[in-house]
Amino acid sequence: MLFERDSSTYTYLVGDTGGGGPPTGVLIDPVDVTVERDAAAVAAAGVTVSHAINTHVHADHVTGTGLLKRTLTSPPLSVLSVTAGGAADVHAPPGWVLRVGRLQLTSVATPGHTAGCQSLLLSVDAEGGGRQEGGKADATASPAADPVAVFTGDALLIGGCGRTDFQGGDAATLYRSVRGRLLTALPPATVVLPAHDYHGHRASTVGAERAGNARLRDGISEAAFVELMAALRLPMPRRIDDAVPANLRCGD
Amino acid sequence: MLFERDSSTYTYLVGDTGGGGPPTGVLIDPVDVTVERDAAAVAAAGVTVSHAINTHVHADHVTGTGLLKRTLTSPPLSVLSVTAGGAADVHAPPGWVLRVGRLQLTSVATPGHTAGCQSLLLSVDAEGGGRQEGGKADATASPAADPVAVFTGDALLIGGCGRTDFQGGDAATLYRSVRGRLLTALPPATVVLPAHDYHGHRASTVGAERAGNARLRDGISEAAFVELMAALRLPMPRRIDDAVPANLRCGD
Repeated sequence: MLFERDSSTYTYLVGDTGGGGPPTGVLIDPVDVTVERDAAAVAAAGVTVSHAINTHVHADHVTGTGLLKRTLTSPPLSVLSVTAGGAADVHAPPGWVLRVGRLQLTSVATPGHTAGCQSLLLSVDAEGGGRQEGGKADATASPAADPVAVFTGDALLIGGCGRTDFQGGDAATLYRSVRGRLLTALPPATVVLPAHDYHGHRASTVGAERAGNARLRDGISEAAFVELMAALRLPMPRRIDDAVPANLRCGD
Repeated sequence: MLFERDSSTYTYLVGDTGGGGPPTGVLIDPVDVTVERDAAAVAAAGVTVSHAINTHVHADHVTGTGLLKRTLTSPPLSVLSVTAGGAADVHAPPGWVLRVGRLQLTSVATPGHTAGCQSLLLSVDAEGGGRQEGGKADATASPAADPVAVFTGDALLIGGCGRTDFQGGDAATLYRSVRGRLLTALPPATVVLPAHDYHGHRASTVGAERAGNARLRDGISEAAFVELMAALRLPMPRRIDDAVPANLRCGD
């Protein structure tokens, strides 16, 4: 977990250096101004970063995925969701599964902050690195164990959520995404890892957010949430005019 | 286009060496016994292969994706569809889009030969390598031009189709996949590139298959197709007992 102060962004390096396979990892939501720090973290971990994943087209900072492709020895593939409306090496639809050593990331569509937001479920591969012994031809896709964590981007923040007033944002959509696909769908112990925190919080859990999230805890209705979001009247992000066009091409 | 004689398999190397970006490519349906040939083709083309994609879990030969990961300098990611029921670095759902230089591959679910078959549409990226000038925050996913070709695996062969009597195969499902998602959905000029041909054919087009495919041409009903497939009574493939378990783990 790495923090960029100017936009209060968390970047995550997720990797597996054990298990007998080559050390491998991914970066989630890197920022352009902290690419050197991220590259140093990657080098220190000794992993090859296969993908630099953006949870969405950010409006408050420029993604580091483009610069990372020019900085890392083995250039990672940039990723956006299929509904993000930007250019990337990989467009991930809901259900896209990426194996990272013995870990597994699965894309879940969580629109509402933007129309193209995705969250990424982190599970430990039930098959121990994807090796299946005695696999049968009619088996269904390898089942992952319960997720241990979820990277929520700006859909679900600790105690709050991303704004819903631009970039295809919609409060009712966000409520249904976050309540339906994260808070009520995942085990309470699932760790919540957001793309930002403005108060120094680093992580929460699904259970803690169901109990205490100011906007999306159990008992707050969709109508109440929509009303609450409409009343916010936030200023536009400082960097929206340069950040969004750059992020629509993954910083390339 | 590369041919493996024992299982009559076509392997495809798709790449882009122009356009100013780094030369990049993918391999589609590589075979274990021809990995050295494929590696030589990759070296001759001067591309870095980001992904080794399997259209499905083959029953007649062992995929080369595992060996390729140990052979190529920059190991590619192995890919299967989410419904293939095997282990891979990436599980691609329908709509997964991979940029390959100025080209784009899009996964289309075409079950029926096996439950997890995918076809891959090849388009020239409408945005010229994915760079969007003046992109708007509310733009939808970058539209690709009409596909120029489709890699059909064993779903649609030249003049025929894959068998439907094992591995979750189902004749009615194959009819709907191939007729609905390929033959009637794609422009007639789209080039058809299958995973096998046993008669020396190399490519066909959607239009030619609609006119002349012995099993799936226009005018053959689903009921007639199902009857025809049920009457085939084919022997099991020689290599099914070793090939399927190996391919369920992408040859790893």
